[in-house]
Amino acid sequence: MSVVGSGERRVRKQRSDGERSRQAILREAAKLATTEGLTGLSIARLADAVGMSKSGLFAHFGSKEELQLATIEAASEIFDEEVVTPALVETTGIGRLRALAENFLRHVEARVFPGGCFFASVAAEMDTHPGPVRDRAIQMTDAWFTGLLAAVRDAQAEGAVDPAEDPGQLAFELNAYLLMANAAFVAMDSTVPLAAARRAIDRRLS
Amino acid sequence: MSVVGSGERRVRKQRSDGERSRQAILREAAKLATTEGLTGLSIARLADAVGMSKSGLFAHFGSKEELQLATIEAASEIFDEEVVTPALVETTGIGRLRALAENFLRHVEARVFPGGCFFASVAAEMDTHPGPVRDRAIQMTDAWFTGLLAAVRDAQAEGAVDPAEDPGQLAFELNAYLLMANAAFVAMDSTVPLAAARRAIDRRLS
Repeated sequence: MSVVGSGERRVRKQRSDGERSRQAILREAAKLATTEGLTGLSIARLADAVGMSKSGLFAHFGSKEELQLATIEAASEIFDEEVVTPALVETTGIGRLRALAENFLRHVEARVFPGGCFFASVAAEMDTHPGPVRDRAIQMTDAWFTGLLAAVRDAQAEGAVDPAEDPGQLAFELNAYLLMANAAFVAMDSTVPLAAARRAIDRRLS
Repeated sequence: MSVVGSGERRVRKQRSDGERSRQAILREAAKLATTEGLTGLSIARLADAVGMSKSGLFAHFGSKEELQLATIEAASEIFDEEVVTPALVETTGIGRLRALAENFLRHVEARVFPGGCFFASVAAEMDTHPGPVRDRAIQMTDAWFTGLLAAVRDAQAEGAVDPAEDPGQLAFELNAYLLMANAAFVAMDSTVPLAAARRAIDRRLS
């Protein structure tokens, strides 16, 4: 093994540790944001939650806004891993549509974030606060809706959903059941709203 | 006019001015709460918003929690005036159900609160913060749902809605359209989601 080779490996390992630590911090930040809000996500509070010094966190994130934006990206990765990516193995539009909805409800039920869906929580908080953080949060909820809409259109092309339906209207209604289930699950601490959303989706897609 | 009589009138007028001023402060507080959250509703920030001294506000509300609870009551009065009470003139269950939904959408569209429905905003914020403020906010959203449910049941008794429908399921779905419309109206600053909710409600009740 050459010295250069070993040096390269060491550098790579260091980077990878730094990356892991950054990801771990951001996952904690995303959880905190669903209870305290992105606005309540101060570097001081996060330092407490992850057991690091404030100066250590400042080395990772230069400003509160940088931390907020990085937290949104981390939450988006989690959401993709748990909800979106597993639905992409479905070979039909209707299959993808049902999988997106079911994966969303399972993600909420698993309490990955204590305040429920990260994006519902953050969009509701930031919608009246213009700026890059709000814009990024809204972009994420738009991308989710666009994914639902594409699956509805594919399901229509396959004949699994009536082609006469307005796809935007159907996607709105399905998304409404999911958002309501998320809000009521957290507020009531009960799975009854998740079951109600499943029935509503079955009925609407049958 | 006796001295006693004139004194009584003065006392009554003072009380009434105090009441008016308190209501005006609380309406401002309710607006602020839909953008900054009930948690962000500090006596200092509210003093700025209403142009009063902090000590003047402390005379009205002894603590932040008292202010938060009073703000919820004030928002509830506004909601009742604009959404619930006008629907009660309807003589049928189906009429009341449609009026509750339509009044809600108009209340959101009128931007009475800059962050949309006060209770959707506050319930989403407080759901993970146990205590009397959370409990009161959740009670208010429960009361709204109970009102929808009662109207659905009356509409079933009249034969305007299929008696075989699960009334809780139907109320869940209607409430979901309203909550989605509220969230998307504020996030997108567009009336498109309000129109989508109207179509969804018409379809579901036809």
